[in-house]
Amino acid sequence: MPHFLARRRVEFCDTDMAGIVHFANFFKYMEQAEHDFFRSLDLKIAGRLPDGTEYGWPRVSATCSFESPARYDDVIEIHVTIARRAGRSLATTYEFHCDGKRLARGEMKTVFCIFPNGGPMKSAAIPDDIAAKLDQAAAKSDDSP
Amino acid sequence: MPHFLARRRVEFCDTDMAGIVHFANFFKYMEQAEHDFFRSLDLKIAGRLPDGTEYGWPRVSATCSFESPARYDDVIEIHVTIARRAGRSLATTYEFHCDGKRLARGEMKTVFCIFPNGGPMKSAAIPDDIAAKLDQAAAKSDDSP
Amino acid sequence: MPHFLARRRVEFCDTDMAGIVHFANFFKYMEQAEHDFFRSLDLKIAGRLPDGTEYGWPRVSATCSFESPARYDDVIEIHVTIARRAGRSLATTYEFHCDGKRLARGEMKTVFCIFPNGGPMKSAAIPDDIAAKLDQAAAKSDDSP
Amino acid sequence: MPHFLARRRVEFCDTDMAGIVHFANFFKYMEQAEHDFFRSLDLKIAGRLPDGTEYGWPRVSATCSFESPARYDDVIEIHVTIARRAGRSLATTYEFHCDGKRLARGEMKTVFCIFPNGGPMKSAAIPDDIAAKLDQAAAKSDDSP
Repeated sequence: MPHFLARRRVEFCDTDMAGIVHFANFFKYMEQAEHDFFRSLDLKIAGRLPDGTEYGWPRVSATCSFESPARYDDVIEIHVTIARRAGRSLATTYEFHCDGKRLARGEMKTVFCIFPNGGPMKSAAIPDDIAAKLDQAAAKSDDSP
Repeated sequence: MPHFLARRRVEFCDTDMAGIVHFANFFKYMEQAEHDFFRSLDLKIAGRLPDGTEYGWPRVSATCSFESPARYDDVIEIHVTIARRAGRSLATTYEFHCDGKRLARGEMKTVFCIFPNGGPMKSAAIPDDIAAKLDQAAAKSDDSP
Repeated sequence: MPHFLARRRVEFCDTDMAGIVHFANFFKYMEQAEHDFFRSLDLKIAGRLPDGTEYGWPRVSATCSFESPARYDDVIEIHVTIARRAGRSLATTYEFHCDGKRLARGEMKTVFCIFPNGGPMKSAAIPDDIAAKLDQAAAKSDDSP
Repeated sequence: MPHFLARRRVEFCDTDMAGIVHFANFFKYMEQAEHDFFRSLDLKIAGRLPDGTEYGWPRVSATCSFESPARYDDVIEIHVTIARRAGRSLATTYEFHCDGKRLARGEMKTVFCIFPNGGPMKSAAIPDDIAAKLDQAAAKSDDSP
């Protein structure tokens, strides 16, 4: 069971002269599904901690393997799964489907970071309330049949 | 005589399923030609005034008419001309050519703005040194045969 | 009364380092609203006529004026209006709104074209059934209070 | 020694509201470096075989790990290396550098495919002349000190 299901329609400008979705756009779709997932949990992908410190989730890596092309006007389902929630990092996987066929599989790794005033960005422990929401989303789905 | 000549090669990701450059990318090309032009004059499209105030050139409008398509790997010439340099604003025009054929014509209007600390952005007089460089670029070309 | 209302949420990748939606993306939003409008009328932006001839609606021009920035996660309303439906061409206008504030206004002109086998694209009369759907959409809204 | 060195300047529209190059654009940069590499070898990324059959190099996978951000106006060096040239496939790696600092590392896997008339795309042996050019590029650099 994926932990979240995102849907999006392929836009004309997402295609290239090969007549299919340009491969780099799968990475945009992953990000958009990730953001939809966060929004569904009432989480933000960037913001401020209660003490005012800015935080964000910079990407460490992204990967995608392509199995079948997506085309203009296709409505794609993106299955989002938390692969691993560690103390400071998060790995999420993405499966793209359309008309019952798998199109692609991807993964993104992000790290929770804070931006202290005047200093460079540094990784930090994921705050408890954020971690709890992520873990709950994972647990709820994993319990489903 | 245009006031500046920019060149760029059409990338694969700039095309769409119609096999040609997606029309929205002509606006990116205009911006890139504008930035090349500014760079050639040792001007920045955003920065800080001597007193530390941030400035920029937000766009007021952009328009483009399309005459002939551009395709992957085409090397496009973009003729940049200052159409009007007023006290607070700048209008530049762009002619796209490839293999001696005109592809498109566009125009962008921008306003010089400052971002005072803690206040909203507001338009301001173009500083003398910036205005002088723009006027000089226009004059030099207009004097050419 | 606009003839169609499109909605879209601003994606992270639509923003630029100025913290706002990059101006070229307003042209993508216009196209997407146009395609939503066509889809709502059961029309396609490209396809084949009953005799098998391919057709499409290449753009003649696009323009946009920018009044207020759009930001990440904003849900934008795009009011689409048929400004003029002529024998071979279509002009549509777009008003962008967010939280009751107008952000931008744009217009696109397209021409109905056919792609005869082995010959170059040429403009053609908009087929009656397509013209009727466009006119009906315009009339219905114009009759509304 | 990389087998090819590509350079490109970061465009304004490549940045996002975090003030850095949006991660998906690293995949576009990889593709553009790949195409520059092919062009340097007088190879095409898509075309026709002597018998008229269309060919191309669809992507099987793409991955990138991000070490340091790229910013507007940065001139990035992209080191392209052929990691493996097999009978039907090609794996290339990309190292991004700016001002002596490594920004990112990526890899793309592509498969040589033909598009027989009326049939679906299928993988095929890389033609000898194309394979020879790729192998020669790799050998020449590997011989360098």
